[in-house]
Amino acid sequence: MKILVVNPNISESVTNLIREEAIRAALPSTEITTVTATFGVAYIETPAEAVIGSHATLELLAEHSAGYDAAIIAAFGDPGAMAAKEMLPIPAIGLTEAALASAFLLGGRFAIVGISERIGAWYQNVVESLGMNARFAGYRGLNKAFANVGTVHIDEKDRLLQMCLSCVENDQVDSIILAGAPLAGLARQIENEVPVPLIDGVGSAVRMAEAMGRSGYAPRRSGAFSPPPVKGHKGLSGPLSAMIGRATE
Amino acid sequence: MKILVVNPNISESVTNLIREEAIRAALPSTEITTVTATFGVAYIETPAEAVIGSHATLELLAEHSAGYDAAIIAAFGDPGAMAAKEMLPIPAIGLTEAALASAFLLGGRFAIVGISERIGAWYQNVVESLGMNARFAGYRGLNKAFANVGTVHIDEKDRLLQMCLSCVENDQVDSIILAGAPLAGLARQIENEVPVPLIDGVGSAVRMAEAMGRSGYAPRRSGAFSPPPVKGHKGLSGPLSAMIGRATE
Amino acid sequence: MKILVVNPNISESVTNLIREEAIRAALPSTEITTVTATFGVAYIETPAEAVIGSHATLELLAEHSAGYDAAIIAAFGDPGAMAAKEMLPIPAIGLTEAALASAFLLGGRFAIVGISERIGAWYQNVVESLGMNARFAGYRGLNKAFANVGTVHIDEKDRLLQMCLSCVENDQVDSIILAGAPLAGLARQIENEVPVPLIDGVGSAVRMAEAMGRSGYAPRRSGAFSPPPVKGHKGLSGPLSAMIGRATE
Amino acid sequence: MKILVVNPNISESVTNLIREEAIRAALPSTEITTVTATFGVAYIETPAEAVIGSHATLELLAEHSAGYDAAIIAAFGDPGAMAAKEMLPIPAIGLTEAALASAFLLGGRFAIVGISERIGAWYQNVVESLGMNARFAGYRGLNKAFANVGTVHIDEKDRLLQMCLSCVENDQVDSIILAGAPLAGLARQIENEVPVPLIDGVGSAVRMAEAMGRSGYAPRRSGAFSPPPVKGHKGLSGPLSAMIGRATE
Amino acid sequence: MKILVVNPNISESVTNLIREEAIRAALPSTEITTVTATFGVAYIETPAEAVIGSHATLELLAEHSAGYDAAIIAAFGDPGAMAAKEMLPIPAIGLTEAALASAFLLGGRFAIVGISERIGAWYQNVVESLGMNARFAGYRGLNKAFANVGTVHIDEKDRLLQMCLSCVENDQVDSIILAGAPLAGLARQIENEVPVPLIDGVGSAVRMAEAMGRSGYAPRRSGAFSPPPVKGHKGLSGPLSAMIGRATE
Amino acid sequence: MKILVVNPNISESVTNLIREEAIRAALPSTEITTVTATFGVAYIETPAEAVIGSHATLELLAEHSAGYDAAIIAAFGDPGAMAAKEMLPIPAIGLTEAALASAFLLGGRFAIVGISERIGAWYQNVVESLGMNARFAGYRGLNKAFANVGTVHIDEKDRLLQMCLSCVENDQVDSIILAGAPLAGLARQIENEVPVPLIDGVGSAVRMAEAMGRSGYAPRRSGAFSPPPVKGHKGLSGPLSAMIGRATE
Repeated sequence: MKILVVNPNISESVTNLIREEAIRAALPSTEITTVTATFGVAYIETPAEAVIGSHATLELLAEHSAGYDAAIIAAFGDPGAMAAKEMLPIPAIGLTEAALASAFLLGGRFAIVGISERIGAWYQNVVESLGMNARFAGYRGLNKAFANVGTVHIDEKDRLLQMCLSCVENDQVDSIILAGAPLAGLARQIENEVPVPLIDGVGSAVRMAEAMGRSGYAPRRSGAFSPPPVKGHKGLSGPLSAMIGRATE
Repeated sequence: MKILVVNPNISESVTNLIREEAIRAALPSTEITTVTATFGVAYIETPAEAVIGSHATLELLAEHSAGYDAAIIAAFGDPGAMAAKEMLPIPAIGLTEAALASAFLLGGRFAIVGISERIGAWYQNVVESLGMNARFAGYRGLNKAFANVGTVHIDEKDRLLQMCLSCVENDQVDSIILAGAPLAGLARQIENEVPVPLIDGVGSAVRMAEAMGRSGYAPRRSGAFSPPPVKGHKGLSGPLSAMIGRATE
Repeated sequence: MKILVVNPNISESVTNLIREEAIRAALPSTEITTVTATFGVAYIETPAEAVIGSHATLELLAEHSAGYDAAIIAAFGDPGAMAAKEMLPIPAIGLTEAALASAFLLGGRFAIVGISERIGAWYQNVVESLGMNARFAGYRGLNKAFANVGTVHIDEKDRLLQMCLSCVENDQVDSIILAGAPLAGLARQIENEVPVPLIDGVGSAVRMAEAMGRSGYAPRRSGAFSPPPVKGHKGLSGPLSAMIGRATE
Repeated sequence: MKILVVNPNISESVTNLIREEAIRAALPSTEITTVTATFGVAYIETPAEAVIGSHATLELLAEHSAGYDAAIIAAFGDPGAMAAKEMLPIPAIGLTEAALASAFLLGGRFAIVGISERIGAWYQNVVESLGMNARFAGYRGLNKAFANVGTVHIDEKDRLLQMCLSCVENDQVDSIILAGAPLAGLARQIENEVPVPLIDGVGSAVRMAEAMGRSGYAPRRSGAFSPPPVKGHKGLSGPLSAMIGRATE
Repeated sequence: MKILVVNPNISESVTNLIREEAIRAALPSTEITTVTATFGVAYIETPAEAVIGSHATLELLAEHSAGYDAAIIAAFGDPGAMAAKEMLPIPAIGLTEAALASAFLLGGRFAIVGISERIGAWYQNVVESLGMNARFAGYRGLNKAFANVGTVHIDEKDRLLQMCLSCVENDQVDSIILAGAPLAGLARQIENEVPVPLIDGVGSAVRMAEAMGRSGYAPRRSGAFSPPPVKGHKGLSGPLSAMIGRATE
Repeated sequence: MKILVVNPNISESVTNLIREEAIRAALPSTEITTVTATFGVAYIETPAEAVIGSHATLELLAEHSAGYDAAIIAAFGDPGAMAAKEMLPIPAIGLTEAALASAFLLGGRFAIVGISERIGAWYQNVVESLGMNARFAGYRGLNKAFANVGTVHIDEKDRLLQMCLSCVENDQVDSIILAGAPLAGLARQIENEVPVPLIDGVGSAVRMAEAMGRSGYAPRRSGAFSPPPVKGHKGLSGPLSAMIGRATE
């Protein structure tokens, strides 16, 4: 199985982190390829940044997805994931979707711990729009700026661990999602110190993409994610234009 | 008061329709300016098309919004509206938001009538994400392709009227939203034949933008719509890059 | 445009406050008239008081509404507002409805700050019955009795400001509604000290009534707010009796 | 145990029907007293009529409730019931509340069948405001005017039975509420023909009032239904004025 | 009226407590019989224990329910109550259902106070599955192990009272449910010290079972609680096997 | 990886069907073992039958789960699944949970198609209790009894296909869950005739159990699914008694 992992942000250091954790999580027979956004911001925290990241995601998928069995949108908040489900004939899964599916299967209530307080409002909206808020016990994020998005999972490990323990003690959660590609791998490092499962976004996404990719679902020909009708367009990049063309044939 | 009206789609004919209805709805002292997306599709029906339209909207706002008192995102589904609230120091309102606020003030339950069945799933998601689904009695859309998005409000008037009457009879709605910029002005033409208020998206948006623009709210310095933190970016257009820069100063 | 503003409470001092703020918020061409309940309590805090205030509202509307383009029920909690929508051929809008519509258009989550803790349970019910609780971040009210309902917005300004700041800091709200006619005008006085928009009930109601009044919706002939069927009645005041009669013709 | 049964409408014929069914449902040791609204309409179908009926209910309770162990508001929609919980030191229960509690204890989903289509929107709102809509399978009402509110349960028995059977067949309900005091007693007459329990509003209310009256709950001194704070009032009837006075001592 | 009260747990001391309180709450003409689970745990705190208790409940009902007018499942969380509604031709009511119905009729929001923190997650699920979570203000439980489930209502009275007062002060609740058969009778002992009604599970269940038993509802022949279709089975106890057989005749 | 698949029903023919489909869905390196309930009914349709099946599931898990990496409860409705999550140190997943997680990752709205109308009410409850009802477009089941639970997927293939097509056409669903172990494998046979993905319960459960089993989550030591406290018990089978003992060490 070949999985394309798209980083909707421009940070190559985060792409490297993602690739490393994705390969560790994947089955030996799974081939992982990563690509990085050619435009956008260092990491996505707000709706405006997500708009840009969503477009960058579609561009990457349009250019690179041919020949893959599944695609992963490797930023929490899943910019462009619903659009990718519609545009691609293969399963396309966001980090949030995969982490939420894992929390769902573990049962009970989950918290989300992430790298910035500001990002919490957007994550809350994403969880709600995915219909999972009944189980959501709340978000906790780092309350001051960090130095380096590529090493925040190392630099701020202690504070992130304390936030996890606080979720257990104060909110009685049954699992905790470590949100954001920049935290890839942190779960393995602190899991022995937290008495409930820690869900890694990248690892979850790889395993869920493998599970869905092996399911053999045919491309949709009806419903909200079937290819859109033919219509006029202009100013789109070559690959995106071709994909919209292809989709409507 | 000066209002900038953004058409997130590339159809100049629809922009003309929007401008005409916006001017008709506006106070005499309000100045209306319209701009049209420089890239994207003829009209937005799906999440993938909305991703592209959202980016086009941000580009238009970044380039043109200086000096305006309020902005309108003139496509139902409000592509980019939440991002605009965050990026701009002035009120930014989508057609859906404005129509829902009108239905809310009229009271009771509303239906939405629009130009395509396919668009219904997306509209449903938008209404839910705005938290208005408790009052939403359902969507009805034209079930076959129309010839011309610039004249669909004329060509399909009878079928659209029948759908409105069906909402009244079968769903006991208390108001009906005529969704989509291409239906701008239709409400005035069929309102005598429908026994509940017909809500025009463009007209509602103009009146609500005037109401909010006159409220004098200062730009936000806290919360989900305050300017995002400074961070690295690349590949953005000049105006969008400048706006992100400005926002973080 | 002529707007009738009804104070469902008996406090003339509050009516004066309402009138002053309404005129300040209105377009120059809008004519504002205020009337005060002839029976009831000084200000409404509970369901029982709201029952009495609702009846007083209907009586005032029955006697005075002829010739107006829109009506405002100028008490938070909107006593009688749904009934007014049904009885009147013109838009009738409560302070809560208008403030919620403003918060809705600003986006995100809102708090409500008001003059008494006791009133919170009723406000919570009203927000829920209007279907806006998904965005509601909670109520904070003064926790001890105030001296004078006509000057509470001046006498308790500091404590009210502190409650607003607490909403921002602890609940991360995106806007705050200053609830209750007795707080009319407070928003203008403290808005520079609060980093999110402060929504004034009276000002919002005037601007929304203007917006809705100009929409030109015809009186409803179907649905939950159409005139009620003819039926026997007794013991009603002359104007209310006449209005019910008129409604059923 | 002494129970005061208040008819918020002016129809003595319906009061008689209520009294007859209440006595049949009551324990032998329970004493039933009925009183009829001195002002208002023949039967309540809309929010405006409910405003008037709520006030009439409070007036009746203020004048007559001394010495009773429990009170019943004997109109579906429960006009004034929340206010009565606040004003009275004894349990006060509406027909809707009692019928919903019975449906809740029977388990599963319930429908409501009533005497007019128009009344459905209001009933829907009441069920929602009581928090029971998750189990509510919908309302069916007579779709044309009936001749006499005092005999509608006899005159329209066949059509009401057919509506009940339709709820069973089309909506797979687990119980059916026969709504409105005018249908008191109908359940006993058609229960053998319907394969799920039929819930009589008056009978339920009597049995629930007995259950709650015997519970011995002391009057509340905290919360949303505790007596309201002292405040100025004017224009209230003697008994209502006295009750508000008493409440605040 | 004859009521069978089933204790789904193996603790005879708790059965004695239940019987004592049930007799105190019942009408003089009501005959109370208690039976105790023949297998299971001392008291139910978790889903796994509830699975066992549910089966034990069905066994007790199958063996003993003939000739009774109503049945009570006397453990909070109502293990087996939905199954009992389906299997028995008489009303079957759980302690949670009855307490929630009482809180519903009192109006407003309720808290639940119980004997262990661990039990809270399960109670939360039960309240949600019964559709009452909109009014639920949260659970508080004893945070350390108690010595004796038969005397915990005496031994821990002070801490339980403090938790009740905390619900009133911090959560502004309108009533409090004292959860769990082991707390039967506690409400009477501390009600004077708490300013909102305290709802006793056993007492509520007896009064509600009397109310429902007197309603005369015929056994269901349609819907989710009608007898299940005939099908193969094996390994069931004689009475349970016979009841399933009987149910399908 | 070793997966234990528990059939909570007594039908060996269905166990064989489950085993066959589970092996087909599993990775080559996964070892599948199936066990069948020693007591209970032929297939579970109702809450009462689910009570019995839940206990049978716990007994099977207590006796057989040692040495496995994950467990599957192979009946739709997931009898005993929450209890299994609590009792076992390994991931335990029900067919419904796994199918819902798959529908969630596919995006949009799903329908459920199953083998009996009666079973629908129970499935609806299960979907609600898992918090997935916002995406649930409804259940359709065979409306007459089938001859053989082991061959119903073959005998009724045409009617089941028609129900799937009806979900697509009338409810605009984005995926369909074929519910119930007796339908294992049907998805592969009719997927070309249905234009949206068909989700097989057994196949989904195997892939999700593999994904969760490989995640390496440690057994929980906190929260709703941590081992229950030590307490007295009696009358439990040896293995179940030992498991409860083990859990509390």
